[in-house]
Amino acid sequence: MKLEKINLSDKFEKLPVGDYAVGLIAKMNDYDFKIVKFKGEFVWHSHPETDETFIIIEGTLVMNFKDRKVEVHAGEMIVIPKGVEHKPSSETGYKALLIEPEGVPNTGNIQSEITIANPEWV
Amino acid sequence: MKLEKINLSDKFEKLPVGDYAVGLIAKMNDYDFKIVKFKGEFVWHSHPETDETFIIIEGTLVMNFKDRKVEVHAGEMIVIPKGVEHKPSSETGYKALLIEPEGVPNTGNIQSEITIANPEWV
Repeated sequence: MKLEKINLSDKFEKLPVGDYAVGLIAKMNDYDFKIVKFKGEFVWHSHPETDETFIIIEGTLVMNFKDRKVEVHAGEMIVIPKGVEHKPSSETGYKALLIEPEGVPNTGNIQSEITIANPEWV
Repeated sequence: MKLEKINLSDKFEKLPVGDYAVGLIAKMNDYDFKIVKFKGEFVWHSHPETDETFIIIEGTLVMNFKDRKVEVHAGEMIVIPKGVEHKPSSETGYKALLIEPEGVPNTGNIQSEITIANPEWV
């Protein structure tokens, strides 16, 4: 039973230096709360089994879909429906809170060198 | 399929005036994302079937437990484990993003005049 509050800024400070990192910060039932920082171009992928939620804490996420792109800024969120192909990108970088069922790989249906299914606790 | 981003400030502006309001803003699988504003003393309750997550967007939530209290400020979150009795309170008011399975009543195991299980979309 974990009853401590979680400070998002404190958690982001514990991520390793670099343009891309993921850390697990909380669990709710069988869902994970992960923090992500990312700068660059991710890979096109989809999650065939589940929706996925991004809440942007800092910076801007450009979420590319096959027919358009959506800029998601700090204070905004987006739910990617299951099965929908998407590619996160960011020229300037973003920090986000990511919510999805535990064990969901970040690259969905695509196996990649950046695939992370179960990030470490931070 | 909803692919629009959601701006939290815009959504909070759509809540009715007053010390207490809840609105549904997104769904992820069978989970609800709700925005809540609250000032005052809520009722003691627990959710026997599910964990519940509060992400504080503005102000301070004082989460009372039977043996202590935890102050949760903007930029912080707390997961209330299923079955744990708790009472939200706030002297100055808070705005939060609440995440839990759909249909979970806000007063948990307690039927009250402030019980809301399925808030309106905002």
